[in-house]
Amino acid sequence: MNHSLSQATTQLHTQPFSKLLNAEVAELGDDRVALRVPITEQVLQQHGFVHGGVVSYAADNALTYAGFLSLKQNVVTSEFKINYVRPAKGEALLARAYTVHAGKNQAVCRCDVFCVQDGREVLCAVAQGTIVVMLPK
Amino acid sequence: MNHSLSQATTQLHTQPFSKLLNAEVAELGDDRVALRVPITEQVLQQHGFVHGGVVSYAADNALTYAGFLSLKQNVVTSEFKINYVRPAKGEALLARAYTVHAGKNQAVCRCDVFCVQDGREVLCAVAQGTIVVMLPK
Amino acid sequence: MNHSLSQATTQLHTQPFSKLLNAEVAELGDDRVALRVPITEQVLQQHGFVHGGVVSYAADNALTYAGFLSLKQNVVTSEFKINYVRPAKGEALLARAYTVHAGKNQAVCRCDVFCVQDGREVLCAVAQGTIVVMLPK
Amino acid sequence: MNHSLSQATTQLHTQPFSKLLNAEVAELGDDRVALRVPITEQVLQQHGFVHGGVVSYAADNALTYAGFLSLKQNVVTSEFKINYVRPAKGEALLARAYTVHAGKNQAVCRCDVFCVQDGREVLCAVAQGTIVVMLPK
Repeated sequence: MNHSLSQATTQLHTQPFSKLLNAEVAELGDDRVALRVPITEQVLQQHGFVHGGVVSYAADNALTYAGFLSLKQNVVTSEFKINYVRPAKGEALLARAYTVHAGKNQAVCRCDVFCVQDGREVLCAVAQGTIVVMLPK
Repeated sequence: MNHSLSQATTQLHTQPFSKLLNAEVAELGDDRVALRVPITEQVLQQHGFVHGGVVSYAADNALTYAGFLSLKQNVVTSEFKINYVRPAKGEALLARAYTVHAGKNQAVCRCDVFCVQDGREVLCAVAQGTIVVMLPK
Repeated sequence: MNHSLSQATTQLHTQPFSKLLNAEVAELGDDRVALRVPITEQVLQQHGFVHGGVVSYAADNALTYAGFLSLKQNVVTSEFKINYVRPAKGEALLARAYTVHAGKNQAVCRCDVFCVQDGREVLCAVAQGTIVVMLPK
Repeated sequence: MNHSLSQATTQLHTQPFSKLLNAEVAELGDDRVALRVPITEQVLQQHGFVHGGVVSYAADNALTYAGFLSLKQNVVTSEFKINYVRPAKGEALLARAYTVHAGKNQAVCRCDVFCVQDGREVLCAVAQGTIVVMLPK
């Protein structure tokens, strides 16, 4: 992992939940990011696949991150939707998010979540959502 | 917790991820369910609120459960959308889901996610999704 | 139709598209509204049901209206999602929308779209979306 | 317009609502399609922009069409979500949809809706949805 990814991951781990899941920033661009979540026993559901909630965590967090990269301010996810297209299994989830449109106060982003299986990436979910700037109270 | 809720929670914990988060089945009806996720340090993000991914986990799982209650077969969540309406904080998340329409192979369900704060319930997110019967391969 | 509904419908018809579809404001509350769209030949698809685009128009417009009632400013729909649960047919669509949560600048609303069939209401779609205040340029 | 687009448009016009809006099939591929909806007075809202319901019609119909191209059976849209990113105005809407994943009975598709303004395409909405095979009763 290069220096800036390592720094970004350290930053990500200021979120206790992201640290709990050992999520990492795997790729970082101007308006796009990939988060990697290793698939371990603790993220599974009863059939041995990754829990949908973990897939949605990865999508949600990657969407927020992509929105942050575009808006360059503190942001939160306002809403998102996710379609699961395949059961998630393998070595890791890779959630790739990018900004589709950014205004002054909000960005609309999309995310593709892949499962890394024997080093190959297989699409397992797609998401779309709205990221908004956190307004001062 | 009464006996059937205790049993349902034991069943829920066959999902390692639900066990990791100490999720419980708090209410159970014919076509509705409430899941309770205690708010502890590990589920937070960097601002001290519950991570959106945990809120979406609770919504996703409650939606799936409500769909299962209506369809009475093995099910998976096909898709859902969630709107976050308030930062989530307090003692616990309470995700209440119910079936809006059930056909033979799929159910459309809604979920309201509350934060329990000093014993009072405050709405923090609303979700809507599609639950489908798992078809044999 | 009473006076205030008649006025609201006149207002609605400042939208040429709502006038084209002969949409009416059928019910009006503090934070809720019902729009009625008569089912005529022109709103159908090839199987004789109401076109999904007309159902989504009704949902979209009702959501926006409910958000306007709560926010009391010029608003636009930022996003919404819709699940179709039954083929739409009958005399009219009735899209009932209400606000779930309203902040200063945005409201999250839900909508249930019914088909009126022989005077009876049958649920045909459910929607959820975000309505935002139009900011001055 | 070439022959196959002309035929596809004739087919599209078996939907009275698509004919009412003068929608055309503008591009056609193996798993992708573009629908064109001319912007005329009748599709506007009160501020002079295209009504959101017309944008959602275009997205819905393009998503369904893309799903049909992949599934090669009679299909319906089960659900979709749309984010409006800019007010829609210009000569025409162009809704480009494509399949992200197709199984045996359902496809997940995305759609980008552009406004054609002085011949230039400007993104005005993005959508994502599920298209399902119509099962025999």
